[in-house]
Amino acid sequence: MTSTKDKTAITPTRENDYPEWYQQVVKASDLAENSPVRGSMVIKPWGYGIWENIQRQLDDRIKETGHENAYFPLFIPLSFLEKEAAHIEGFAKECAVVTHHRLEEKDGRLIPAGPLEEPLIVRPTSETIIGDSFSRWVESYRDLPLLINQWANVVRWEMRPRIFLRTTEFLWQEGHTAHATHEEALQETMTMLEVYRSFVEDVLAIPVIVGEKSPGERFPGAENTFTLEAMMQDRKALQSCTSHYLGQNFAKGSNIRFSNMEGQLEYAYTTSWGMTTRLIGSLIMCHGDDDGLRLPPRIAHKQIVIVPVIPKPELEAQVLEYAENLAAELRKQIFYGKPLTVHIDKRDKRGGEKNWEWVKKGVPLRLEVGPRDINEQAVMVARRDQSPKNKQSLPKQQFVQQAASILEDIQRNYYVQAATYRDQHIYRHLETFEEMRAFFTPKNEEKPEIHGGFVLAKWCGDPVTEEMLSDLKVTIRCLPVKQSGTKGRCILTGREATLDAIFAKSY
Amino acid sequence: MTSTKDKTAITPTRENDYPEWYQQVVKASDLAENSPVRGSMVIKPWGYGIWENIQRQLDDRIKETGHENAYFPLFIPLSFLEKEAAHIEGFAKECAVVTHHRLEEKDGRLIPAGPLEEPLIVRPTSETIIGDSFSRWVESYRDLPLLINQWANVVRWEMRPRIFLRTTEFLWQEGHTAHATHEEALQETMTMLEVYRSFVEDVLAIPVIVGEKSPGERFPGAENTFTLEAMMQDRKALQSCTSHYLGQNFAKGSNIRFSNMEGQLEYAYTTSWGMTTRLIGSLIMCHGDDDGLRLPPRIAHKQIVIVPVIPKPELEAQVLEYAENLAAELRKQIFYGKPLTVHIDKRDKRGGEKNWEWVKKGVPLRLEVGPRDINEQAVMVARRDQSPKNKQSLPKQQFVQQAASILEDIQRNYYVQAATYRDQHIYRHLETFEEMRAFFTPKNEEKPEIHGGFVLAKWCGDPVTEEMLSDLKVTIRCLPVKQSGTKGRCILTGREATLDAIFAKSY
Repeated sequence: MTSTKDKTAITPTRENDYPEWYQQVVKASDLAENSPVRGSMVIKPWGYGIWENIQRQLDDRIKETGHENAYFPLFIPLSFLEKEAAHIEGFAKECAVVTHHRLEEKDGRLIPAGPLEEPLIVRPTSETIIGDSFSRWVESYRDLPLLINQWANVVRWEMRPRIFLRTTEFLWQEGHTAHATHEEALQETMTMLEVYRSFVEDVLAIPVIVGEKSPGERFPGAENTFTLEAMMQDRKALQSCTSHYLGQNFAKGSNIRFSNMEGQLEYAYTTSWGMTTRLIGSLIMCHGDDDGLRLPPRIAHKQIVIVPVIPKPELEAQVLEYAENLAAELRKQIFYGKPLTVHIDKRDKRGGEKNWEWVKKGVPLRLEVGPRDINEQAVMVARRDQSPKNKQSLPKQQFVQQAASILEDIQRNYYVQAATYRDQHIYRHLETFEEMRAFFTPKNEEKPEIHGGFVLAKWCGDPVTEEMLSDLKVTIRCLPVKQSGTKGRCILTGREATLDAIFAKSY
Repeated sequence: MTSTKDKTAITPTRENDYPEWYQQVVKASDLAENSPVRGSMVIKPWGYGIWENIQRQLDDRIKETGHENAYFPLFIPLSFLEKEAAHIEGFAKECAVVTHHRLEEKDGRLIPAGPLEEPLIVRPTSETIIGDSFSRWVESYRDLPLLINQWANVVRWEMRPRIFLRTTEFLWQEGHTAHATHEEALQETMTMLEVYRSFVEDVLAIPVIVGEKSPGERFPGAENTFTLEAMMQDRKALQSCTSHYLGQNFAKGSNIRFSNMEGQLEYAYTTSWGMTTRLIGSLIMCHGDDDGLRLPPRIAHKQIVIVPVIPKPELEAQVLEYAENLAAELRKQIFYGKPLTVHIDKRDKRGGEKNWEWVKKGVPLRLEVGPRDINEQAVMVARRDQSPKNKQSLPKQQFVQQAASILEDIQRNYYVQAATYRDQHIYRHLETFEEMRAFFTPKNEEKPEIHGGFVLAKWCGDPVTEEMLSDLKVTIRCLPVKQSGTKGRCILTGREATLDAIFAKSY
């Protein structure tokens, strides 16, 4: 490492312009791009590989907890939304509306034709259409609990789209369950919250605060919304999964009734819970650095990349053979329950160029092998959690044996770095609204520097007071599940208050 | 087995009313149901489990052949379709059209608002939107081949929907590739056709005829369309995957150009290939019998179901323990490269009722274990490829050792049965159009009995002659890749002809 400031692979740096840094990382790591359809993104193979890995690992956990996958229609009849007053308020105003089912040619142009009797909405979420099925599937308490999950695309019209973070179309899973009792449904809500927490912390290495949403931030129609709040490196919060207890509200709207053990008809208690491609945005902003993406090894779809160094064409066969053997040995090693994933980059490009590509793409371990390494039966190892220039020659056998534990070390480092950063920026000393205003006001209003953080303070719990925050562009992110139980003064009103709340700007 | 005709689990039987039998099997096996959105289905967990298994196994093969998954927008700008004249002809007339992006409340109703400047089409297929990305991703021959696959939902408006077979929304994978040469792209088309063939025959146990589509049946805009044609038990054909060589047609429409080794700009050669949830319809109609679904073991997501027999409550613990141990031992056995999937049905229902449910759902092996079996360390085994009443007691250890090979036997039987049935109904003796008309005319026009089959006959190759067939509701299903090379007379025109063609009614 040099003492002078190194040039970074990403321009601008996080410090110089965080929003632009984010866009540049997305581009440099080849994760996704904007499409010609405003607000919709193209998820490129490197980004989709992360999503597939998220899907596979989360899906296993969803199934282990007794849920089954199913698939429901993309289109929802307008009348279904009309039934759900709270839902309309929350979603209907930002929907894609299908009004025609045919196109006709006229003067070389295509004109919508075949108007629908009832317009259809492209699902913004599936409570109503799944509720309709549940109303048919549930008759008796014997049919409960009903534990269903769906992997799907959903659409919520975005006026200010931002790749992964706010896109008109995004991918997600949505769990929907129905239960015979309030207690069981609430238990399910908490079980899935814990499934999410362990997945996000253990696999994505993103530390989160587990909490409940305040009334103003609840899912429309829910009794309780629970959330995982993560801190990005600009100290804003990003909600990284939610789990909702819906009480009997949606069961009443969809007529999900069952005859209980006494033979009486009762409305079921339902839950829903979801995780989206937004989480990839969280991954970028939580772990990325000024050289690009940094993928936690447990979610990286290529954990190790080998770049063969071929100084002369006649050495190519020998170097590639060495690389293939190394890859084969590494693939026999087990990391987090699966064989290591190893990629050999055989492209016809200069080694330095390849190396920087993999730095920017965030591959946890980069290996170089060339004639000298063959002579020494060694391998040149670079870790993404260290400076890009930091390379170490290790005996090949030693490296093969240690590879999995090095990856575990990187995984742990990312988590610890993120948790340390977050903990440094949780502020507990603020006492008044004016202090909070000052805290959340950047010095440079035109082009705000990184500022603010999570303010942990007392709140009186009066929903009306949440409106005071909109002016600061701050919201109550959550009431942490772990409450201190102490008494104090509400930071918004000065009233006596017991609730601990996290206040922050957010994505 | 009894000599009198047994009552069947499905009414009507295939022979009595094949279309209605199909609907009843879908219902009885709990695969899917119609939704309130006309033409859209709900794929229930039992059906979706099959789809997940199809996805996982086909996806492995798609990746093994060098392709990567990505995700492209659901919405396609109208102008993209206008660019593709052939495409419009083929798809644009049956599209869902999004014209508004907001809903507003008016007198308690929701009214579409926020009209779009340019309407959006819900993708019927993604050639144009993926082509747009390819035009940006491809610059030089070094960027080729570009090998991309997408798993997605697509929408083609259906006026006469039928579950799995013709639904407005369906799920599929669509591969899209770009190449530097005609030869390489054609090779890709054939490689993927073979991937499909081996998957459909080896995993789904559906025998297929591999062939090329005639011009009248080609994908709009393709140079060549290759297909796998399977015969259902009503002797109609079902196209079970297609692979298209698109030449430079779509590359020109989407401006996918690369500079070749000589530095000249050239249009790329592209392919596309797809497989859909329709294949589940094929699975039902190829293997189902009058007792319901029959799932080939390699695609069944539950290969073995254990029904505990508990004559007295005090025996429950003992029987369940025996069942759990049996399941654990079976799960250590490997079938088709994976541990056996075993489900214990602990529901509070009568054993006979459970047994028939699993018959109808098509589980390959049903086991019963009760106190007597515990005493004898045995297990009662019923195979879905035999009569539902046919049960055999086997020593437990022997069964555990043999389970995988019994499943292989069932897999093979399904394939052989389907191939035998098909081969019995390939007719080679027809020589004239009038003979063909008679052959494809049912005795009962009102409610057609099972009739017809695959007619293998000579065809002169003149596209105009295909129109003669529409009157018979027959099409040329394919020109088999394996051509006999013999000469003869065209069955449509009597002209001299060399091509072998398969004529049939189809789904």
